[in-house]
Amino acid sequence: MFDFKVEKKTGDKLYIQVFDGIKKMIQEGKFERDHKLLTIRAASLALSVNSSTIVKAYDMLEKEGYLYKIVGSGCYVTSEKLPEKFHFEEEGDQGINYSQLDLGKVINFASATPSSELFPLKDFKDAINFVLERDGGEVFSYQDPKGYGPLREEISRYLNKKEIKTDNIQIVSGSQQAIDIIGKMLLKPGDKIIVEGPTYAGAVSSFKKAGAHIITIPLEKDGMDMKKLKSTLEKERDVKFIYTMMNYHNPTGICWSQIKKEKLLKIASKDNIFIVEDDCMSEIYYGENNPLSLKSIDEKEKVIYIKSFSKIFMPGLRLAFMALPKELIETAVSVKYMADISSSGLNQRAFHHYMKEGCIYSHLDSIRKIFAQRYIYMKEEIQKIPQLKIVYEAEGGLFFWLKIPEWMDSEKFYNLALKKGVSFLPGRVFYQKNDLSPYLRISFAGVDENEIKIGMRYFREAFEEYLGKRKARLPLV
Amino acid sequence: MFDFKVEKKTGDKLYIQVFDGIKKMIQEGKFERDHKLLTIRAASLALSVNSSTIVKAYDMLEKEGYLYKIVGSGCYVTSEKLPEKFHFEEEGDQGINYSQLDLGKVINFASATPSSELFPLKDFKDAINFVLERDGGEVFSYQDPKGYGPLREEISRYLNKKEIKTDNIQIVSGSQQAIDIIGKMLLKPGDKIIVEGPTYAGAVSSFKKAGAHIITIPLEKDGMDMKKLKSTLEKERDVKFIYTMMNYHNPTGICWSQIKKEKLLKIASKDNIFIVEDDCMSEIYYGENNPLSLKSIDEKEKVIYIKSFSKIFMPGLRLAFMALPKELIETAVSVKYMADISSSGLNQRAFHHYMKEGCIYSHLDSIRKIFAQRYIYMKEEIQKIPQLKIVYEAEGGLFFWLKIPEWMDSEKFYNLALKKGVSFLPGRVFYQKNDLSPYLRISFAGVDENEIKIGMRYFREAFEEYLGKRKARLPLV
Repeated sequence: MFDFKVEKKTGDKLYIQVFDGIKKMIQEGKFERDHKLLTIRAASLALSVNSSTIVKAYDMLEKEGYLYKIVGSGCYVTSEKLPEKFHFEEEGDQGINYSQLDLGKVINFASATPSSELFPLKDFKDAINFVLERDGGEVFSYQDPKGYGPLREEISRYLNKKEIKTDNIQIVSGSQQAIDIIGKMLLKPGDKIIVEGPTYAGAVSSFKKAGAHIITIPLEKDGMDMKKLKSTLEKERDVKFIYTMMNYHNPTGICWSQIKKEKLLKIASKDNIFIVEDDCMSEIYYGENNPLSLKSIDEKEKVIYIKSFSKIFMPGLRLAFMALPKELIETAVSVKYMADISSSGLNQRAFHHYMKEGCIYSHLDSIRKIFAQRYIYMKEEIQKIPQLKIVYEAEGGLFFWLKIPEWMDSEKFYNLALKKGVSFLPGRVFYQKNDLSPYLRISFAGVDENEIKIGMRYFREAFEEYLGKRKARLPLV
Repeated sequence: MFDFKVEKKTGDKLYIQVFDGIKKMIQEGKFERDHKLLTIRAASLALSVNSSTIVKAYDMLEKEGYLYKIVGSGCYVTSEKLPEKFHFEEEGDQGINYSQLDLGKVINFASATPSSELFPLKDFKDAINFVLERDGGEVFSYQDPKGYGPLREEISRYLNKKEIKTDNIQIVSGSQQAIDIIGKMLLKPGDKIIVEGPTYAGAVSSFKKAGAHIITIPLEKDGMDMKKLKSTLEKERDVKFIYTMMNYHNPTGICWSQIKKEKLLKIASKDNIFIVEDDCMSEIYYGENNPLSLKSIDEKEKVIYIKSFSKIFMPGLRLAFMALPKELIETAVSVKYMADISSSGLNQRAFHHYMKEGCIYSHLDSIRKIFAQRYIYMKEEIQKIPQLKIVYEAEGGLFFWLKIPEWMDSEKFYNLALKKGVSFLPGRVFYQKNDLSPYLRISFAGVDENEIKIGMRYFREAFEEYLGKRKARLPLV
């Protein structure tokens, strides 16, 4: 059964040796998927260790995704091919594993990236060839660190339509770079910042790496819990900035109310705190309402506005921009220059041409319709599953924030669902304290209606299996 | 003459008021270029201030590049169009000003970037369209944070020809991003690092911003002063890494000897110090010699090798890579991911195709010949100027490190030369302590033979004018 031995004389703890031994066997494919491992008692006999050692090792294996447990039945091998680390696709640090992971036939409700069928390839190819012809070598010379001038102007016009009036625009290589630059501009180790709970993990990880101490304020359906925010600010001095996603928030899909937006701005001005508004979703509204950003009412120049073109256009383009308070623009240019001199000239110039020709607006019209349909379609599928709750109804964006019954753990459920052939993001990815959580996010960005249908069937199967286990246990309680 | 008044009652110091007033007039174009300002005495009368106030203000204006002085004659306005800050083109922080500066007809010996006529536009355009056709939407989806797989493989093969054997390759958006990532990976505030003196300012600024304490070891014609390096390492504990450019060093053009290379590696292994080898030039050799990198003899995995395609291909592509010690590769991927997720898919894939077809090798052959010719041509022009000394003869690279007579200051000379119509980089740009210096760097990367000829004529005129002043002053001593 086990092809390793536990050495009692080495310095390594016994349960770590058991963990490493079984993990290695799983990684080397020595177990079939769903293979049932020895019971605690049998394993402790086989390896001549205490049964508590086996319990600890099995727990660790389960936590890292190598095992799943069925109460009253035993422990089973999740898969012979799971990567080294447990993977939560595409949010924050862990996204790295995703890109190297062959998910095979798993239907991906985890990714919030539009599927490539939605990319306007033909038009963009034309734009590329147009600028290559027009600009020649200029395309590949060093570019202005602030960003290609005409693109900045075009973005100003774009923002004007969203009632944002500013020329203080810095082009960056994706919103992750904006976040990195903001960290470098504003944070010293030990500085405090405030984020929403839940929130985007990639931002939190980056700010943490810049040394920030992160305070989480719970989110309500119309924005942050303002009482908690105020009492926190009274207690905590020197908060550097508040990081927020006001429109179709990731992962909950909520929008801040106008009242809370205005309150937040007032607080920010009074306490001299910047607000980082990460606006990746507001173009994806389903109805007639185009929600306004905080930046559009930012009269005192407190808001650092980030807009990525990854979600609304194409992520591999690596283009985003910041609209900054005037006092920060010079520093931003200098930090950008130190980070990578400038963003790709070809991508900037081609995207400028594409924007100028108005193509971006018709592209947005088209994807808005598609996403609205997918939203409705997925919602119907979700509603077919009793005990699965949509926490907030969204009017835009790319995902549902769901709640499974309180006693369930969305991470365990994730492992089950992955086995069935569908992935999503467990709730704890979006929280700083990685507690177990009955919340999860499913996205329809990269899946068409057919995939939604199949994926939701897998989802339902996994859900029912989990429920079934509970039922199986009930008589024993 | 002056359109402002000095207010004795405000808090601002009087000389600052005079400085600001004149600066504003210059910026608003109220003086012609080369306009002679009032003498110290006349200005002090006109503004009703002490003559020492005027002396201070004029000194500040000179320092910031608004004035130049001719000894025994007076102060002259440099230009009505100089940017806010004094500009040293393209090296480090100050490069930002350059990109926003219209140098007009100035011949640019400052930039080390190949002129765009040398870019293989046709071939690269074909490569772009090839991958757009082949890969479709994949080009614009998220890419592997480590870099496009086939490109990494192609780079491994490329390195193999340079006797570097490694698969630990991380693609980055230009060597500046490599430097940024290395800072994030290895440096905490207060950490010590060692650099050559002189060295590339962009690296020093970036490491400084990451909190490093920078120790400079003087460079000799065959590498660092090893005695000083050893005594420094005995004194200073916990040096994190040594940053070096071993082949056709920037700005001096020297190459390290094999003996010093091996010594350095030995020291690094003994003291457990990483070596950051920034290799942007080694492909640009003029003769038959292709100098080997430190990385090629790095058996103990101590060298972080950076190779940019900016100088040898096209800078606006924003592509470079790191070949890392195995123990660092995972951290590097994670830091890259936090910095900007991944580099542009289009640029990576097109460049891969271009490399795979072998085009990069024929491109290198062709630019090598061109640069070797320019080197010889510029050398002849330099030798026409007596009292101008080539400090080191280079066998590759893109520049000359020159010495003007000891009593001259290359920064003052820079202002004079710019007025004549030619730019270069004063020596102090390459030193941490920004002392005055009789050294300067001129580059032929972005200028053809005709421009070299004209530029060197301007250079000579400025040089003779500076000499003339000395002569004019001599009788008075």
